Amino acid sequence: EDSFQVAGRRFTSRLIVGTGKYKDFDETAAAIEASGAEIVTVAVRRVNVSDPNQPMLMDYVDPKKITYLPNTAGCFTGQDAVRTLRLAREAGGWNLVKLEVLGDQKTLYPDMAETLTAAEMLLKDGFDVMVYCSDDPIMAKKLEDMGCCAIMPLAAPIGSGLGIQNPVNIRLIIEQSKVPVLVDAGVGTASDAAIAMELGCDGVLMNTAIAEAKDPIRMARAMKYAVQAGRDAYLAGRMPRKKYADPSSPLAGLI
Amino acid sequence: EDSFQVAGRRFTSRLIVGTGKYKDFDETAAAIEASGAEIVTVAVRRVNVSDPNQPMLMDYVDPKKITYLPNTAGCFTGQDAVRTLRLAREAGGWNLVKLEVLGDQKTLYPDMAETLTAAEMLLKDGFDVMVYCSDDPIMAKKLEDMGCCAIMPLAAPIGSGLGIQNPVNIRLIIEQSKVPVLVDAGVGTASDAAIAMELGCDGVLMNTAIAEAKDPIRMARAMKYAVQAGRDAYLAGRMPRKKYADPSSPLAGLI
Amino acid sequence: EDSFQVAGRRFTSRLIVGTGKYKDFDETAAAIEASGAEIVTVAVRRVNVSDPNQPMLMDYVDPKKITYLPNTAGCFTGQDAVRTLRLAREAGGWNLVKLEVLGDQKTLYPDMAETLTAAEMLLKDGFDVMVYCSDDPIMAKKLEDMGCCAIMPLAAPIGSGLGIQNPVNIRLIIEQSKVPVLVDAGVGTASDAAIAMELGCDGVLMNTAIAEAKDPIRMARAMKYAVQAGRDAYLAGRMPRKKYADPSSPLAGLI
Amino acid sequence: EDSFQVAGRRFTSRLIVGTGKYKDFDETAAAIEASGAEIVTVAVRRVNVSDPNQPMLMDYVDPKKITYLPNTAGCFTGQDAVRTLRLAREAGGWNLVKLEVLGDQKTLYPDMAETLTAAEMLLKDGFDVMVYCSDDPIMAKKLEDMGCCAIMPLAAPIGSGLGIQNPVNIRLIIEQSKVPVLVDAGVGTASDAAIAMELGCDGVLMNTAIAEAKDPIRMARAMKYAVQAGRDAYLAGRMPRKKYADPSSPLAGLI
Repeated sequence: EDSFQVAGRRFTSRLIVGTGKYKDFDETAAAIEASGAEIVTVAVRRVNVSDPNQPMLMDYVDPKKITYLPNTAGCFTGQDAVRTLRLAREAGGWNLVKLEVLGDQKTLYPDMAETLTAAEMLLKDGFDVMVYCSDDPIMAKKLEDMGCCAIMPLAAPIGSGLGIQNPVNIRLIIEQSKVPVLVDAGVGTASDAAIAMELGCDGVLMNTAIAEAKDPIRMARAMKYAVQAGRDAYLAGRMPRKKYADPSSPLAGLI
Repeated sequence: EDSFQVAGRRFTSRLIVGTGKYKDFDETAAAIEASGAEIVTVAVRRVNVSDPNQPMLMDYVDPKKITYLPNTAGCFTGQDAVRTLRLAREAGGWNLVKLEVLGDQKTLYPDMAETLTAAEMLLKDGFDVMVYCSDDPIMAKKLEDMGCCAIMPLAAPIGSGLGIQNPVNIRLIIEQSKVPVLVDAGVGTASDAAIAMELGCDGVLMNTAIAEAKDPIRMARAMKYAVQAGRDAYLAGRMPRKKYADPSSPLAGLI
Repeated sequence: EDSFQVAGRRFTSRLIVGTGKYKDFDETAAAIEASGAEIVTVAVRRVNVSDPNQPMLMDYVDPKKITYLPNTAGCFTGQDAVRTLRLAREAGGWNLVKLEVLGDQKTLYPDMAETLTAAEMLLKDGFDVMVYCSDDPIMAKKLEDMGCCAIMPLAAPIGSGLGIQNPVNIRLIIEQSKVPVLVDAGVGTASDAAIAMELGCDGVLMNTAIAEAKDPIRMARAMKYAVQAGRDAYLAGRMPRKKYADPSSPLAGLI
Repeated sequence: EDSFQVAGRRFTSRLIVGTGKYKDFDETAAAIEASGAEIVTVAVRRVNVSDPNQPMLMDYVDPKKITYLPNTAGCFTGQDAVRTLRLAREAGGWNLVKLEVLGDQKTLYPDMAETLTAAEMLLKDGFDVMVYCSDDPIMAKKLEDMGCCAIMPLAAPIGSGLGIQNPVNIRLIIEQSKVPVLVDAGVGTASDAAIAMELGCDGVLMNTAIAEAKDPIRMARAMKYAVQAGRDAYLAGRMPRKKYADPSSPLAGLI
């Protein structure tokens, strides 16, 4: 069966979903269920994953069945991100993490200089680091060479829903990478996810596209199918594009 | 359950597949099976559906389970198309048909003048006419007003795999039509099919994209998922596109 | 010098402009001047070109210097269009005309069936017919075979400013045509015009893109340059697109 | 008159051209002339600008009329780039320079970490630094804050001719920058240059698109017009895009 591996763990679903922006934990859980995701990413500075006196995500999404991937959403410095993940590891034992160090509020693009620094610290600390990054292949290569276990280039600004803006860069990153490449941020609808997978990505991470659809549960299912569709199409090997028509039924030899 | 209706018949699969270009009837049958299609279209001038002394498609694809949709592939005049479908009706009893009258060999675009004439003759003859047409909304409207039961505008030249060239026109046709609109011809890979469905099409018809993939069976499955993904995304109501980022996790109020 | 010919007349400017939507005839004249156009198209049912007791376009745009191309904007039937152009010929002696027969108000796309009929009548009447048409190459061919002296496929709905929606179709029309092909309708900004010319069009016709720019006179000039740029780029033969980088300065042999 | 300023110098042409890949210095000079460029960029490690015993570019392109912008093409480390520009300053007195530090040979994308380091050294050294960079707005901001006098994000890989891959990023950089932003690398034909200018860029730098056209001199002229067209269109303020048609001539009140 088709699967991919990150930091020694094997996953069959190639869709990773976030847990923000939902009405409540019930809806979050239902969307995750519908998406078929095996990994959910959690903004540990924002979502309650440690205070048992408050409603906890774990009560709705079973961490024995679903892999929790703590992320550093909202961190604007490398230090902040590192501190956040250390605390999370203490609280929940999570070693596989998603690093994101934001550069500004308008784009929510990563600050790649801070990201490189923070990745280095986390790797030294023994974390398995999946890393949100720009779609710059040179930067992606540095992160891979450093030891990050997954490269997660953005498709478009977080929450923008614009889809993959630069397929050339995503392709270049895929071609050069030996670790999994997952498109992270910017997907808006099902075809965006399919396109990412058709380019050869190992997976897609999204949150807003599901949570802010009119019907999040149905959109979660749409995304499950879209990722499968894109993956299958990639593996199946698409037909070549042609400048002119080519008949389905030979025009010669007709009865 | 989500379904659509053509000429009084209800279908849950929104993927219609052709039967040309496969290695043999075994592969044809396996691809149809994997695609989940409930309708297959058959070039009756080309595929044996009447001579029991030769291998017949019916021996591989059961017409009791799958709706056969005879088409007039290879007809370059309206008269030719009408004669072809009359013969097919005599042979197989098919009343629901797909009309296509080609304009030239380079584009395999429909000759819309001949198509209008042929559609009128077929409708007078009592056929239920699904019609392959250009993506010109004015022409599509004429065909609908005339009584055609499904409008099937092209996405791109037949067999080109270029995907939807003019989403504006497809949208305009969908907005104005009261009968089902199915994109027919030009789809190349899974995301193309998803995009068609996200625009609000009722279905997608394809042949080459599946038959000429390196692995047709897997591509057939990809297309099944893609159509489901696009349909679900359309019904779920996608998030709006935004010019700037929008955080999944509120940036204020972080711990 | 580079030029093109329509109905025996030679033009060096490849930009044809409309005369609608301007503040007044002064602005109209200034925009035409800035555009460098040698042909202006005039909606003869709308613009005063015959009543000397009202302000006349001819008082601002000299018909001895600029070729007037009467059009049938606002005609929804072929008969109406034919009658309009006959009256125009009587009034102004114009024999070179632009036929447009609209299909509906939402798209302002041509009704190609009515267009074919009207073109035939006008040609029989001795008119030189430039014809606004859909981007369907099969229909374009019929119009050329009939004797139209220029094929004018739409880029996008009139006044939409969406730019060329289907470059594949425009290319197919250009490849097959022996008469000039001019993109008519839908251009929104300078690059749209350049793209049309780079595809190999003989010219571009526009109105709204200039008249509804914040500064119509400057936009008229932009369009003049854009058409020249696109034409020169087409004639110069662009570099091939490459999947990877290719250094401007050889990397080997550096000092 | 419309102009832009870099490091205290004012330029009216917004097209900067390279000097590589031409047949000989005669063709180089003719292309520069046709392009109307007031700045040419020179790979000082490659082009002879200092040895009077060899043919020198200065004998063909007069440095009193055209501003020479030495660049560090072919440098893969910041140190190398800094050394190259120091030597160039000694040789030719050039203080206004274009920094580029390449990351790999496949993409010729900048190594942004090395670029930041080198920019800092050059600025400390008193150079006016125009800087080739990725289209990452966060990195562009760092370079501007550091004191670079022009931000030069790439449109696509050098020499690829793919045009602007990520207009969202170029727009974000333009919106945030107080120094001139010039698209550098990746332009393939005239409309690509026009699109860059329509986004609000202050200028465009190119080499291969001109030098590798079949007719470089004509393409140089095409680019001159394209940059003017795009600039004028930007200043003129384009019409809004509309979902439906909008008649040039009001449909009501027709004669």
